Amino acid sequence: MKNDPVVAIAGVTGAVGAEFIATMDKRAFPVGKLKALASARSAGKTLDFRGRKVLIEELSENSFEGVDIALFSAGGGVSRRFSPIAVKAGAVVVDNSSAFRMDPNVPLVIPEINAGRIAEHKGIIAVPNCTAITALMALWPIHRRNRIKRVILSTYQSASGAGAAAMQELIESTRASLNGQAYPPNVMPHPYAFNLFSHNTPIDPTTGYNEEETKVIQETRKIFEDDRIAVGVTCVRVPVLRVHCAAITFECERPISEGEVRAILTNAPGVRLVDDRVRNYFPMPIDASGQDDVLVGRIRKDLSDPSGHSIAMFVSADQLLKGAALNAIQIAELLPQRAMA
Amino acid sequence: MKNDPVVAIAGVTGAVGAEFIATMDKRAFPVGKLKALASARSAGKTLDFRGRKVLIEELSENSFEGVDIALFSAGGGVSRRFSPIAVKAGAVVVDNSSAFRMDPNVPLVIPEINAGRIAEHKGIIAVPNCTAITALMALWPIHRRNRIKRVILSTYQSASGAGAAAMQELIESTRASLNGQAYPPNVMPHPYAFNLFSHNTPIDPTTGYNEEETKVIQETRKIFEDDRIAVGVTCVRVPVLRVHCAAITFECERPISEGEVRAILTNAPGVRLVDDRVRNYFPMPIDASGQDDVLVGRIRKDLSDPSGHSIAMFVSADQLLKGAALNAIQIAELLPQRAMA
Repeated sequence: MKNDPVVAIAGVTGAVGAEFIATMDKRAFPVGKLKALASARSAGKTLDFRGRKVLIEELSENSFEGVDIALFSAGGGVSRRFSPIAVKAGAVVVDNSSAFRMDPNVPLVIPEINAGRIAEHKGIIAVPNCTAITALMALWPIHRRNRIKRVILSTYQSASGAGAAAMQELIESTRASLNGQAYPPNVMPHPYAFNLFSHNTPIDPTTGYNEEETKVIQETRKIFEDDRIAVGVTCVRVPVLRVHCAAITFECERPISEGEVRAILTNAPGVRLVDDRVRNYFPMPIDASGQDDVLVGRIRKDLSDPSGHSIAMFVSADQLLKGAALNAIQIAELLPQRAMA
Repeated sequence: MKNDPVVAIAGVTGAVGAEFIATMDKRAFPVGKLKALASARSAGKTLDFRGRKVLIEELSENSFEGVDIALFSAGGGVSRRFSPIAVKAGAVVVDNSSAFRMDPNVPLVIPEINAGRIAEHKGIIAVPNCTAITALMALWPIHRRNRIKRVILSTYQSASGAGAAAMQELIESTRASLNGQAYPPNVMPHPYAFNLFSHNTPIDPTTGYNEEETKVIQETRKIFEDDRIAVGVTCVRVPVLRVHCAAITFECERPISEGEVRAILTNAPGVRLVDDRVRNYFPMPIDASGQDDVLVGRIRKDLSDPSGHSIAMFVSADQLLKGAALNAIQIAELLPQRAMA
């Protein structure tokens, strides 16, 4: 990649868009020029970037001329339509949507797990589903030493996964609830204040699994390059703003102790142990919020498997950071140097 | 039991205490006289019961003279101290605390499952842990037809399980958060507004399981009268007011289909199916709140078990009703007639 790439952000006004910019700043990601792209509704506004005002432009077929890196986070439809155009214009696309994740020609990358796949890209690299990233960051260091045969996870997913409008709806509907006022849900399918509900993605009528769950199952296999890993998952939306959590039970091919898991995860990149039984202190959203690391704790033997092959644990990660923007910027940092255009 | 028993409620000012009274009214439970018992702090106040003012008295060793049924929900310490006194005074104690649940001389009763055990009581009958009730109501109708060998559950537990003060802390800390004000946690060990955390009971340093989880494991075995059932459980407190939910994966001895589970649960007492894949409508706290039934949905094959022996599902129940007060009143309704004192 050039030393001062032209970077386009498609979806710059969204929840992840804002974190792309914050993360680039935090990591001093080199940017020659920023192209801020959004829908017509936001075009003409400006945003602050490294001391300058940047005009927000409407995303169009002409947006990608001269762009080196295009970060997409504007939904699958926008990615499907504009990513090929960006690639044709010479950009490398790092796509946060689900549009290309299962495309065999598209690397699906969590840098701590499979950074080596980045070099194989044909123009598009996909950022995995945020729940998959959260869980796999903690599972991979174990899996590579003692193959995980089976995983059962239940998620506690925040509003941010459904975007900035969903976060706002959680805030405003909670305020209304506290004031005894009605608040008909607008973004989410169900009332969100002091409530929780099954993940708001369509359900496969045959399997009964929703799209979020299906993504976790499929993406785990692709990222681990293990088609046999058995995954059972229940995805639930909880009234939390921007951190996803998961209760995970996994079974290894060989026996494994909680001490081994703790030792492995202590040295795992991007993972931080928060596992204090005496203080009853474990991963939770307020501590993971705004943090790069995936927090892991409650590591203990799964008492439902007397064979000693199974462990239970709990993970929390900022859905907008490691679950989206940070993972994308980490990929962009690893793009190979290219000749100047 | 007498036609017009004298009923004492120990802990009448608590969250469950209020629901004892509401449930007795709703079910037209016969009450000759109500003795409203609480701590010294509440003594001297009054409460409304069936059109009359009832004076709240301080719970003491003399509180149980002439009492036929004593409903306890004032914590394990109060139950341990005063239940034997109530029994000695001639009352039958229905205890909502964990004090006597694992005592081999005390029946641990969910009437839909093991009402027959009530007759064996020696003065005390225990109401199971609220999470255990919520899960077992949905598991028992399956277990009795096709033995469940293994259960893995992750809970989404409400503030009400920690009492009225915890519910108030959730409300007030959320209001403070929305107003940008600090709110140091007082009842709960961690900030509760838009946050979740591992269950706030002490953790066994050997197993790593907290007391709530240990209760679920032990009580499942006692209620099902099955010492071999393998249970793995993660208990999590979420910012919801009064409904507990759980994501449950279970494995049966023989193959089982989601159709069979749906058919079994359609006719199960105290259970209501809420399982609409097309509308993405499943059990959630706002629908279970104030309801007697345990809601069950998301019934589907556990995709992590290709053998066809495992099913995943999601349950919601009002922690204060079926998880506590309702279950206790159901037990009281089934107490055998006794000679008049």
